[in-house]
Parts: sequence; structure tokens; C-alpha cells
Amino acid sequence: MTTVCIIGVGLIGGSLGKSLRGRAGGRRRFHVVGMGRSRARLKLAKRLGAIDEGTTRLSAAVSDADLVVVCVPVQRIVPLIAQMVPWLKPGAVVTDVGSTKTRIVSDIKKLLLRRKNVSFVGGHPLAGSEKTGVRNAEGGLFRGTRCVLTSDGATLPARRRVASMWRFAGAKTVEMTAKKHDEALAVTSHLPHAVAFALFASAIQASRTRPEIRKLCSRSFRDMTRIVGSDADLWTGIFSHNRRNLRTIARRFSSFFHQITAGRERDVLRLLGRLSSAKKSWER
Amino acid sequence: MTTVCIIGVGLIGGSLGKSLRGRAGGRRRFHVVGMGRSRARLKLAKRLGAIDEGTTRLSAAVSDADLVVVCVPVQRIVPLIAQMVPWLKPGAVVTDVGSTKTRIVSDIKKLLLRRKNVSFVGGHPLAGSEKTGVRNAEGGLFRGTRCVLTSDGATLPARRRVASMWRFAGAKTVEMTAKKHDEALAVTSHLPHAVAFALFASAIQASRTRPEIRKLCSRSFRDMTRIVGSDADLWTGIFSHNRRNLRTIARRFSSFFHQITAGRERDVLRLLGRLSSAKKSWER
Repeated sequence: MTTVCIIGVGLIGGSLGKSLRGRAGGRRRFHVVGMGRSRARLKLAKRLGAIDEGTTRLSAAVSDADLVVVCVPVQRIVPLIAQMVPWLKPGAVVTDVGSTKTRIVSDIKKLLLRRKNVSFVGGHPLAGSEKTGVRNAEGGLFRGTRCVLTSDGATLPARRRVASMWRFAGAKTVEMTAKKHDEALAVTSHLPHAVAFALFASAIQASRTRPEIRKLCSRSFRDMTRIVGSDADLWTGIFSHNRRNLRTIARRFSSFFHQITAGRERDVLRLLGRLSSAKKSWER
Repeated sequence: MTTVCIIGVGLIGGSLGKSLRGRAGGRRRFHVVGMGRSRARLKLAKRLGAIDEGTTRLSAAVSDADLVVVCVPVQRIVPLIAQMVPWLKPGAVVTDVGSTKTRIVSDIKKLLLRRKNVSFVGGHPLAGSEKTGVRNAEGGLFRGTRCVLTSDGATLPARRRVASMWRFAGAKTVEMTAKKHDEALAVTSHLPHAVAFALFASAIQASRTRPEIRKLCSRSFRDMTRIVGSDADLWTGIFSHNRRNLRTIARRFSSFFHQITAGRERDVLRLLGRLSSAKKSWER
């Protein structure tokens, strides 16, 4: 059995733990150790079937692990890995689930220069929700989703070990450079989140003088602001890590938004017509 | 039985027809006449249970109706009502389902000055989806939703007749002025749609040079661009009708969006924190 240590047993870590504890061909393939800051939450994670054992000590958590998966908000990933380096066993592979990759991959490359026998593979499962915590964890969370693994630097065996774990959890793995990942995710995830936060902020402000607004929310409004419940810390970190790509796409967005809200009717009709047709072939 | 004439038997008109054809206490309360431009679509609407009879002639459709419900895109509502005025029977009440109200209500007020025995009540059921056509119509579409009726001008009996129809269809009616409606809907529906179109436009443009974007769409992206499939004509009309309110809220939105994508990390964290908390109490 491969020993996997999951650091941070929340929605993502807990869901990964649950799926790795499943059987394939009648046999367990992974032994799951959870590490967290709260003994009570680790107990809960164990009771919910997300981990086999839990500990609050980083050294104990990682020292036997073949694979360490860091499931904490982006801004805490590098400091955590810096702390665990001395305790990692030779041959261990470390990976993460952070929504940004460039800064993390480059910082960790520097960290690991002194530990030639330890590898890091950046990871980002495109799954999750506005919910948080191990109580919302589901073993099927990654089924049918994509998981990006960064191809920068890591050795082929290390990349294979991480990819095989994600495939066991039901995800399809896609390799690309950290740079390409961050450019793409700025468009498909970070921009939509920034937009949702701004949308909700405008509605709250407007509802101060027009309270009826709260009662007239359409399904579109609810769908588009669902993610505002997401963790504020996490998203501040993501926006900050990927600031440059986010700003580039934000400028494009603002230009289209201005065309739509302030353009001539004829031009708006042409643009919306093009978009409606393009929507049909998107994601095919 | 009340004879209701539905002009435009698409998603909204068809769903209304289906629900009005239901029984209450074992009895039918509404006889539903559908009017459309295509004989084939009217036949389909009848087969699907959305109408009792159909006609392509406006005069035949409205001349026996106690209640006429105009279910066509906003920019076609006023011209259609202008055409039907000579054929309406004394005491008839006309209503619509348009997503904007100020311009429609004021134009129709002028139209009806010569017909003292005909009333108009502006209506807007907050239901619908990016789907279109009678094939997607559902009798339960309005159940539990809100329907705004404009209180401007119409007589109390006319407002009651329209309200009673929507309640039969399962909606909760809310009365307000056309002006208040348009100010609120600019925030809760028109802004989210403008944002969704702009979001999708930016993603398409970016995907030309970075094709991997299409494969890395998160659930947030899909949720937030779902409505891009909506009818381009319809939405161009809505944006144009409610242009002034949309521009006001678009400026607020842009200012928050800029704060989030280009502000200092400390300020972003504070703003997102406030929004996450506010989300919990919103819509309660």
C-alpha cells in the first residue's frame, strides 16, 4: 500500500481521502494519514471515513509518507512545504491542490534544491464548490473532473505517481506548464470569481436604498453569485498569486462589458448573436 | 370559465398555458387560446397540452378573450398590443410578461387612451431559463416564483384579475411601480446577463491563442455563462429598454470589479470577507 499524507482535511483533502480509501479489485491501495491543526476535526474526519489516522504533528504526518498532498489555501502551501522538508523520507513525492501554480512551483523548486531525493509536482483538481470543511467532503467529488499537473521540473516517475493517485480518485489528468495553467485559470475560474464578488457587492450596495432588490433575485443572479460564499482568505490569495494574468483578462472583460452596457443597439445585437452561436460549440 | 389568450406560445407562454389548463377542485377555470405565427408550432403546443385551441389570426385570437397575455420579446410587445386594440372586447384586460416595464407601461398608456373599457397591467414573472420554445415549457415553471405586477394606472379589478391568474399558475404576486421594477431588475437580472455575455466573450477571445482554456472550464464558469445561450434579440431589447438603470449599476459594478482585480491585497481581503458574511443573510 502507498502511504498518502493529506495536509488539511477540509472539503478537498477530505474528499480525496474518502476516494483513496476506496477499494479497487477488492483491495485497498492507499493508507491515508491526515494532518490538521485541530484534533477534533481530525477525529471527525476519521469518523466520516476521510482518513485512516490523524495527527496534528507535521513531522509524524509526513515521515512515513510516499506521497504528501498539501490541501491548504494557496498562500499557506509554500510555508508548509518549507516546514516539512527536513522530515520527508527519501523518494517522497509532494504535490498540492492550489488554484494557482506559477509562484508555488517556482518557490518550491528553490526550497527543494537541497533535497535531491524529494520531488514536487504541482497539482490542481478542477473540482470543489463554495462549500467548505470535511463535513461536505464526498468520495465522488473528483469523478469525471480534470486535474491539471504541472510538467515543469518534476521527474517522470514522480509525475506518474501523482497522476495515478488522481486517476484512482476518478479524475482525468492533464499535464501543462504552470504558466499555461495560470493563464487559462485566470479566464475560466479567477475572472468568474472576481466578477461574482463584484456583482454581489453592487447588489448589496444598491439594496441599501432599494430594499425590494432582495426579493427580486432571479435564478441567474443566484447562480452567478453562488460562489460568493467561498472562503475570502483563499480567494484573496488566489487573486494575488495570479494578479498579472487576472488583470490582463479583466481588461478584456471590461471592454466587452462596456460594449454591451453602453454600445449601440445594432452592435450589441451582433455581439450577442455571435456569442449565442459560439456557446453551442463551446466545450464540445 | 375565463378565456385567456396567450400571444406567443414559447417557453413562458407555453408554460403558462399548461398551468392554466390544470384543474382546481376538479374543474377547469381557464380556456386557453394560443396565438402564434406558425401553424405547425401551434399544433405542437396543442399536442403538448399548452393550449386548447390555436390561431395565427390576431383578431380571432383576442376577440373573445377576457384576459390577453402577451408573451413575446420586449421590443415586440407594444407593436402587438397596438395591432390588437381594435379587436379587444369591452372589459378585456391585457397583460404582458416582459422583463422591462417602464417604457412598455408608458407606451401602452398612450395607446389605450382611446379605449376606456380596456385595461393594461404590466407583468413580469421571475421565471424562465436559457431554454426557449414550447418543447421546454413546463406547467410547474412558475410554482413558488414571484411575479411582479405594475401598480401604475390600471384599475383595481384589472390588477386583481391578472394577479388571480398568476396565483393559479403557482406564482406569488408582488405589486410595484414600473420604475421600481426596472431599477431592481437592472441589478438582479440585467446586470448578471450583461456580465455573463462579457465573461463568455472574453473567454472566447482568449481561447483563440490558448485553446487549452476550453478544457479547463470550472463549474463556476459553466454556471456563470449558462445564460449566454439565451435569445440574443430578446436580451438586446431588454438592455436597450432599461439602458439608463443598467448603466448606473454597471458603473457600480465596474468600480467594485476594479477594486477586486487591481486593489491592494489588504483591501481585497476586507471586501471579500464582508461579502462572504453578507451572503449568508441575503435573501432571507
